[in-house]
Amino acid sequence: MLDIQEIYNAAEVLKDVARHTELIHAPNINPQADVYIKPENLQLTGAFKLRGAYYKISQLTEDERKHGVIACSAGNHAQGVALAATRNGIKSLICLPAGAPISKIEATKALGAEVCLVPGVYDDAYAKAIELQKEHGYTFVHPFDDPKVIAGQGTIGLEILQEMPDVEAVIVPIGGGGLISGVAFAIKQLRPDVKVYGVQSSGAPSMATSLQEGKIRHLHNVSTIADGIAVKEPGVNTFDMCNRYVDEVVVVSDDEIAAAILTLLEKQKLVSEGAGAVSVAAAMFDKLPIKGKKVVCLVSGGNIDVNTLKRVITRGLTKAGRNYTFIIDLFDKPGQLAEVCNVIARTGGNVLSVTHERINTSTEINGCTVRFDLETLNPEHIERIRKELMEAGFKVLN
Amino acid sequence: MLDIQEIYNAAEVLKDVARHTELIHAPNINPQADVYIKPENLQLTGAFKLRGAYYKISQLTEDERKHGVIACSAGNHAQGVALAATRNGIKSLICLPAGAPISKIEATKALGAEVCLVPGVYDDAYAKAIELQKEHGYTFVHPFDDPKVIAGQGTIGLEILQEMPDVEAVIVPIGGGGLISGVAFAIKQLRPDVKVYGVQSSGAPSMATSLQEGKIRHLHNVSTIADGIAVKEPGVNTFDMCNRYVDEVVVVSDDEIAAAILTLLEKQKLVSEGAGAVSVAAAMFDKLPIKGKKVVCLVSGGNIDVNTLKRVITRGLTKAGRNYTFIIDLFDKPGQLAEVCNVIARTGGNVLSVTHERINTSTEINGCTVRFDLETLNPEHIERIRKELMEAGFKVLN
Repeated sequence: MLDIQEIYNAAEVLKDVARHTELIHAPNINPQADVYIKPENLQLTGAFKLRGAYYKISQLTEDERKHGVIACSAGNHAQGVALAATRNGIKSLICLPAGAPISKIEATKALGAEVCLVPGVYDDAYAKAIELQKEHGYTFVHPFDDPKVIAGQGTIGLEILQEMPDVEAVIVPIGGGGLISGVAFAIKQLRPDVKVYGVQSSGAPSMATSLQEGKIRHLHNVSTIADGIAVKEPGVNTFDMCNRYVDEVVVVSDDEIAAAILTLLEKQKLVSEGAGAVSVAAAMFDKLPIKGKKVVCLVSGGNIDVNTLKRVITRGLTKAGRNYTFIIDLFDKPGQLAEVCNVIARTGGNVLSVTHERINTSTEINGCTVRFDLETLNPEHIERIRKELMEAGFKVLN
Repeated sequence: MLDIQEIYNAAEVLKDVARHTELIHAPNINPQADVYIKPENLQLTGAFKLRGAYYKISQLTEDERKHGVIACSAGNHAQGVALAATRNGIKSLICLPAGAPISKIEATKALGAEVCLVPGVYDDAYAKAIELQKEHGYTFVHPFDDPKVIAGQGTIGLEILQEMPDVEAVIVPIGGGGLISGVAFAIKQLRPDVKVYGVQSSGAPSMATSLQEGKIRHLHNVSTIADGIAVKEPGVNTFDMCNRYVDEVVVVSDDEIAAAILTLLEKQKLVSEGAGAVSVAAAMFDKLPIKGKKVVCLVSGGNIDVNTLKRVITRGLTKAGRNYTFIIDLFDKPGQLAEVCNVIARTGGNVLSVTHERINTSTEINGCTVRFDLETLNPEHIERIRKELMEAGFKVLN
């Protein structure tokens, strides 16, 4: 079982390895609370995972070191293990599902790991890793359900208390539960008055469901943009520790997560992945009793695919009324398109793209449809443009 | 004239106001140098400007404080002055061109400033600010050409030397030159062996041109995505200081700036604006003699419009071969579209959008054109898809 001394040990081991990420004030997250970000997205490898993996690997025996380590991950854990092993002069082998993004495969290789691509999904890669481990005597580095890994993640709890002794609540993402187990354990040992809250995605609420039902539950399907915390089942250790040390676990939706990613991007200049932003989403959308409190949201990672990020931005802009697609029926006579363009120019819409279609089943046989994708200022601006279009006699379908 | 004591004074004044932004290791910027980022995009208000504005305002006389301050800016300086004045309990009035982005206007108001929207462009807002200043006795806070403002920015130089005593070169963005004047002055007073390099956009090279020609030059047109450093003419003080203390000034193109923004986003999890990323662009694209050196790139700000950011991402992805638009001629018979879809599915392209058009002047009267926007892995992947399409008998126009 873990004791606090082990977390101090881990902090000592990690002193010159992990970045001590400094808290950043984030006044735009929730106007009713005093919110700070613990930016583990700025950690080496772009996520907190390095801490647990490095501490685990640093504690191996000479014999274990000789055999090397193995892990299974399509994400941040892979890079954490690769970097930790390389820095310790140990061989690492990472099993990845063959469909993993090429950027993640390359990043893992660049950190010195050998990569084994396994046909199928995560579960297949996991099975292969266990098989190889048995065959070759590697040490398996579990992504979360290991006391040494948990101790490494717990150093984040020490850093928060040290930097902000008057913190009142800490909000932490939960996938398998390794991060929050370490953080909650450290904080509750030293400062039981500080609240520790957990957040999962509503598309993968394995820990939330398990805690609610009082036993470990396995989810058959998980689906969320927060792929880093899409875990089907909590660990034995982490379930027990969350049960003891975490005050409350809540869930947030994919739309709330997307809004949190966009807010971190615009207001804090920080790139976060879905899993990393759930803590901020919970604070933004009042899921927890933090009114009037000094709160730290742990942003656990920033490894988001930029194509995904682009889609999140688009969705966030649309929701905020800063993009809009007008679809307008035109009666087919000269000057109609020019007139629409004039109205849009006059009302300050910024044209992103235009599609003009002749084929059209909805209205007159001589009619056609034009579609304008616009940058707009806000929902009121959209309504002002709509009103002017209608006053100019156009039929606005959307 | 400035002396180093004034920069120490400024550091003392700013101690509890500005964030001491910690250096971040950035191993992906240039493999031949050891590059660190000084992330002033994580400064309060999203840019370094707060430092100079706050120090300037803190040094006003009692009488000047009573009259309040005025500034003219469509960007970071506005927010720096607003926050600095509000924290000092002083009234601030900011003149902005009427077309300024609503987000910047709102941000400036939210920091406690009164905003005066002036019809026209920046120069009109500037003229109005001077007029109001004369009429009401406000103190004008110049965005760069003021020794107190320069002293405030110089605190960044102190922080870099203190945190990294073995730094060998510092790369700094240049607009009007206030930032680099302060940083270069501080560094050259204390450590004349450390190189200080400046970077401008090739679309607004006012300081570069002026230094080259040995006198202040006024550019009539400036155009760049780095709007924060699109300055037509350096200041009298800043020109003189750059002449004395800056080792070399280079320029970077808009495409290089966009690539730097994307790299900071993906590899460092940091959002930067164009002006903020020019230092990184210069390091990435080997514009300066930094091979084998320990280098700090000052990222001056992160206030980029998210619609602009989205366009930068798109352009960066396209340049990296991670997005591609295929345009394919189809002969109009059943099953052709399905066959194209099969080829794309088989080769692993991820479809973003499809447009199928009947009207078509380029080929057969019964032909039509289909356009596929795809997410791809890299240029080789694009060529593999193209080859398979052609082998399947399709005419690929793009």
